[in-house]
Amino acid sequence: MDIQYPLELIGTFMFAISGALAVQDREHDLFGAGFTGFITAIGGGSLRDIILGSYPLVWVGDVWFLYAIFLGILTAFLFHRSLGKLRRTLFLFDTFGIGFFTILGVEKALSLGVQVEIAAIMGMFSAVMGGVIRDTLTNEVPILFRREVYASACLAGAIIYLVLNHFGLDRDPNMLISIGIVIIIRLVAVKYKLSLPRLE
Amino acid sequence: MDIQYPLELIGTFMFAISGALAVQDREHDLFGAGFTGFITAIGGGSLRDIILGSYPLVWVGDVWFLYAIFLGILTAFLFHRSLGKLRRTLFLFDTFGIGFFTILGVEKALSLGVQVEIAAIMGMFSAVMGGVIRDTLTNEVPILFRREVYASACLAGAIIYLVLNHFGLDRDPNMLISIGIVIIIRLVAVKYKLSLPRLE
Amino acid sequence: MDIQYPLELIGTFMFAISGALAVQDREHDLFGAGFTGFITAIGGGSLRDIILGSYPLVWVGDVWFLYAIFLGILTAFLFHRSLGKLRRTLFLFDTFGIGFFTILGVEKALSLGVQVEIAAIMGMFSAVMGGVIRDTLTNEVPILFRREVYASACLAGAIIYLVLNHFGLDRDPNMLISIGIVIIIRLVAVKYKLSLPRLE
Repeated sequence: MDIQYPLELIGTFMFAISGALAVQDREHDLFGAGFTGFITAIGGGSLRDIILGSYPLVWVGDVWFLYAIFLGILTAFLFHRSLGKLRRTLFLFDTFGIGFFTILGVEKALSLGVQVEIAAIMGMFSAVMGGVIRDTLTNEVPILFRREVYASACLAGAIIYLVLNHFGLDRDPNMLISIGIVIIIRLVAVKYKLSLPRLE
Repeated sequence: MDIQYPLELIGTFMFAISGALAVQDREHDLFGAGFTGFITAIGGGSLRDIILGSYPLVWVGDVWFLYAIFLGILTAFLFHRSLGKLRRTLFLFDTFGIGFFTILGVEKALSLGVQVEIAAIMGMFSAVMGGVIRDTLTNEVPILFRREVYASACLAGAIIYLVLNHFGLDRDPNMLISIGIVIIIRLVAVKYKLSLPRLE
Repeated sequence: MDIQYPLELIGTFMFAISGALAVQDREHDLFGAGFTGFITAIGGGSLRDIILGSYPLVWVGDVWFLYAIFLGILTAFLFHRSLGKLRRTLFLFDTFGIGFFTILGVEKALSLGVQVEIAAIMGMFSAVMGGVIRDTLTNEVPILFRREVYASACLAGAIIYLVLNHFGLDRDPNMLISIGIVIIIRLVAVKYKLSLPRLE
């Protein structure tokens, strides 16, 4: 767990940045931007834990997550111009972040004893629902419905993890592979503008 | 309970179909449609159970509900053209569905020991909040505010059930009567385009 | 506690009125207006208690809150014309209300043993999230993002309360001072149309 805890804090920090920056074109003041960063960072994990009845929620039980969020919001405020030029870097961070939180969400759900089907969904929820709640609050069509293969990449990674876990693969290589799958699916989809078909 | 459990699964299946079909005119891909079907099917019952603190949530504790939802989403994908022509049939299913889930919600709340006033509201929430969450996520004005006498029919059915229960009517005839009341109110309101007055 | 309980009921009653009146320009029927009043009144406290895992939720455990809400909705229906002329009075009630519920939320969170940083956020959530949920359901940009120094005044009041509490000030004067701070910040911001800067 030596590396996991700092990674979780870094991921939370990144989510807060992306949430706070998401509203900079709109009529939000700094407080609104910070609030949105906060909701984005805690939304997915909180919803997962509330659905599973796992208390205390991660950020309620460990105040360091709150500090990571505040730092992320502050970073967004101070460097939002420079960050605006780093779209590609932010995109890569976000892609790694959703992969990472998907697998953590799957593991947490499994540790609470739910069945694998539920664990797969909870992994996806952990990764994407913060963004969905953010978009709903700011009256945007949720990212889930807009972006090429976003939540579906997470779901695919979650399922890969559960399958490999079922066949006895150790945790560390499994995490690497599953997060890698999420990243590759997402990168390929964005590069070639792939998206799933529609109901027509 | 012989008949109740399959009815619950069928109701969940129907809710998933209606949720997945609800987005077919929009810019959603298959995943977005499936996600919306999922949220519609679990939303009302999940919110009721989270408010009442009743864990595990029904679909988390019994994976058959998840299968019913997947089957509903798949049905929507495969037969969405034919289903589009069955509007009247779907409407009837939906009307029976909200009546049925209202009464189940009332009974679950009562079994958890809350007062009757709370049970009536929880019955209505079970039936309509999945659709409200769906509409909020897809940036629609929630069904609750659009449709003629929708949630109010559920609330009326819940109150009838509680009154008849108070006066000692057995469960089975009471369910039949109360669900019938929801259906009749809704059918009459739609047929004659009735709606409640407005604040003006 | 002699005075606190009736104040809580009165605050809930006021929130229900403001919620029900919030939709009177839109295409909502009476039921939609009542539903919105209900959500506004219970939303903030319910979200706080769900996040903290504090069951039963206040209004589920004490049916008098439900009666206060019904009375508020009824008052809105009967007197909505006259109330429309009392904008200034309603504004003052709302301002007192958010201050009062902020501090109650802080105290409840502290009594559940969370750290002060969490308690400050929970205080703000108690006061403003009912309105945020209401605005999200009715497809408005949430009040949080529109109004001058609304949620930030609550957060400031919560922090003042926690600081004074830390230095040993008794509860009653502390409540008076902290609620007063919320009210003053809000009144000054509205009078001089102050708002926080934006990210640009």
